[in-house]
Amino acid sequence: MIRFYNGKTLRFEGGARLTADEVWTDGGVISYVGPAREDRPAFEREIDLGGDLLLPGFKDAHTHTAMCFLRSLADDMPLDRWLTEQVWPNEAKLGAEEVYDLTRLGILEYLSSGVTASFDMYFENEANARANIDCGFRSVFCSALNDFDKDVENIEREYLRFNSLHPLISYVLGIHGEYTTSLGRMEYLASLAEKYKAPCFTHLCETKSETEGCVERYGLTPPQLLDRLGFFRYGGGGYHCVWMSDEDVALFAHRGLWAVTCPSSNLKLASGIAPIERMRLAGVPLAIGTDSAGSNNALDMFREMYLVSALQKVTESDAAACPADAVLEMACVGGARAMGLEDCRDVAPGMRADLVVLDLKRPNMQPENNIVKNIVYAGSKENVRLTMIEGVVRYERGEFFVGESAERIYDRARAIMRRIRG
Amino acid sequence: MIRFYNGKTLRFEGGARLTADEVWTDGGVISYVGPAREDRPAFEREIDLGGDLLLPGFKDAHTHTAMCFLRSLADDMPLDRWLTEQVWPNEAKLGAEEVYDLTRLGILEYLSSGVTASFDMYFENEANARANIDCGFRSVFCSALNDFDKDVENIEREYLRFNSLHPLISYVLGIHGEYTTSLGRMEYLASLAEKYKAPCFTHLCETKSETEGCVERYGLTPPQLLDRLGFFRYGGGGYHCVWMSDEDVALFAHRGLWAVTCPSSNLKLASGIAPIERMRLAGVPLAIGTDSAGSNNALDMFREMYLVSALQKVTESDAAACPADAVLEMACVGGARAMGLEDCRDVAPGMRADLVVLDLKRPNMQPENNIVKNIVYAGSKENVRLTMIEGVVRYERGEFFVGESAERIYDRARAIMRRIRG
Repeated sequence: MIRFYNGKTLRFEGGARLTADEVWTDGGVISYVGPAREDRPAFEREIDLGGDLLLPGFKDAHTHTAMCFLRSLADDMPLDRWLTEQVWPNEAKLGAEEVYDLTRLGILEYLSSGVTASFDMYFENEANARANIDCGFRSVFCSALNDFDKDVENIEREYLRFNSLHPLISYVLGIHGEYTTSLGRMEYLASLAEKYKAPCFTHLCETKSETEGCVERYGLTPPQLLDRLGFFRYGGGGYHCVWMSDEDVALFAHRGLWAVTCPSSNLKLASGIAPIERMRLAGVPLAIGTDSAGSNNALDMFREMYLVSALQKVTESDAAACPADAVLEMACVGGARAMGLEDCRDVAPGMRADLVVLDLKRPNMQPENNIVKNIVYAGSKENVRLTMIEGVVRYERGEFFVGESAERIYDRARAIMRRIRG
Repeated sequence: MIRFYNGKTLRFEGGARLTADEVWTDGGVISYVGPAREDRPAFEREIDLGGDLLLPGFKDAHTHTAMCFLRSLADDMPLDRWLTEQVWPNEAKLGAEEVYDLTRLGILEYLSSGVTASFDMYFENEANARANIDCGFRSVFCSALNDFDKDVENIEREYLRFNSLHPLISYVLGIHGEYTTSLGRMEYLASLAEKYKAPCFTHLCETKSETEGCVERYGLTPPQLLDRLGFFRYGGGGYHCVWMSDEDVALFAHRGLWAVTCPSSNLKLASGIAPIERMRLAGVPLAIGTDSAGSNNALDMFREMYLVSALQKVTESDAAACPADAVLEMACVGGARAMGLEDCRDVAPGMRADLVVLDLKRPNMQPENNIVKNIVYAGSKENVRLTMIEGVVRYERGEFFVGESAERIYDRARAIMRRIRG
């Protein structure tokens, strides 16, 4: 049992609010949230927050964790060339052990950014799961069915396996994208959704050419086509959602589909700026992802949160657009709900103990005129004091606790790069 | 004398390059840059870089340091309302002691962001100078002549006083902006420029309405009007430069005027996105500022560098636009030259010892495929290991060395906020 006390707690249920509550964890669960009490159990550790802020961890709701190996290797080219010239040829050189090592490197970066769960779309999922379990990190895998897959039925086997493997791992159905997946395969995935009454996700309306290509191929936008195929019958959503028509937005709102926005990746690949404020006002549920460090080039939720808000202000010509409290809720709560992690969404008894402590005693958090705005508009990785997943402290004051030193994880990533680059 | 060794050094002269050079400082100056030598003097301290990177400090080429007191107090409104409803009424409550205390708070934030000099436009400059000198921070003040000034000739007195007061302080002529300054006062400032053969700076083309208003008032864009008045006869430039016509860009390129871009402030106040790539390709010299933490809301050069590049990629629909090496040079070298700090622009013998060490052993800097791209596209305040100004370490591994504890500086800022907010 661990006790957090003498600080501030951000709770979302019933409207976001800061409290002076202390928080106890027991195993992987939050066991008490409330005022200090005399009848305290014996704690394994008592953490004096010293005025700092405890909040639910950020959820990175779209990423490709192991792709951090491409950081700063494949910049300054558009999405199609980036995929065909850099990503796919280099990824072809990765085996299970590489994915294991590189996933661990990505996990270090999540921890240093206050991220407690990833919605990860990658391959070599056995190695991916092992990396997450070994580091004590939570990950929801999304399948990436496409026309290059040799063994289509592997999706169903993975769905069953990874949803019963370990409490830190779960699995959601998905295709890579309409533009990489034939109609027959999209229909197959929709049939799995029907069979398991499961939500489906995909890269969606990321670039203009992808979106226009779908209209040319099928006479429908990607959201409309997939909806027609039954892909969204049990919910789900899209990653990116940059080129959404008004009808697409209305469809997402009507079906309660998640738009997962990845603003830094969309800027850096010159894909565009998603109409987040338009979607928000239409009632589309929203979450935030970093996309991979191969494209954006960092797994940094502070940067994403700032961009979600600031880009809407400039595209809407309205400095009041997309306010900070809405954005922080997307990062903490929206992500959890999009990923099927309802029990990781808040600081409340019975929730999983996936928590972050932010250091408010750094100059960028002073004065404390408005702590939520400080986080969204001025926060940085320097503010992450502690990251806890499933009740275990995995990061604290610059140190990682993932079963191996950061330096050894870097060494192995370096060796992989030497092999890949010849 | 201090020795930095066992790391990497980024040098700009003759083309940016990474070297294995070690660096010695002597007093406020860099005394040696080159391979390790046997004939070493006795050092006061030897700093083992352990593979980390030494580079010239970032220059924050447009800011209002003490305005950090407005952080997260005045968000979510456009520039005109933000100025009239929040900034000016609250600033009216500040006296010299408040400016002193708040400037010190802002300096802590610069140090934690690897910034070694500010181009600061504010009032109560005696207190401002004292704050910088007491903290050992370098600042170039820019006068902000406007129609509210009661004592116009104070500019000339300040120009003479602050250019001979202290090695850390200098002073550049400027007006607040065309839209706040009458023609007579702009002409007066131009006459001072002529008298001292000095460059002039101003807020310029920040918003569409400001720029259109100038055309209505004078039939000229702000750059053309000021140029006509002789304002730019000895150089200088503009802060923001968002709404620049092709003719304005050509004028800036022709005269070698500095465009100082503040992308995060321009987003957050919904002012627009400056045509940095267009200016860069036209040969306009470029530097980067944060603007104040009242508008953007952080003094974070990593965020600004990322935005300078990423926003151009999306507005130009070209992922190759505004590459990382050009942006890092703007932040380190461009800023120094814009501010008249030619001797703070590089790691070379004879230059001032204004240096930063970036920690490359954080997950966001791994693998080291391209260190410059890692800094610009993935860097964060968590990477700032050490900040040195004039040969003195002012920040190291989270600790500040500015003559007073951070906690006491926060306390005084808190007391000021209580007074202001009643």
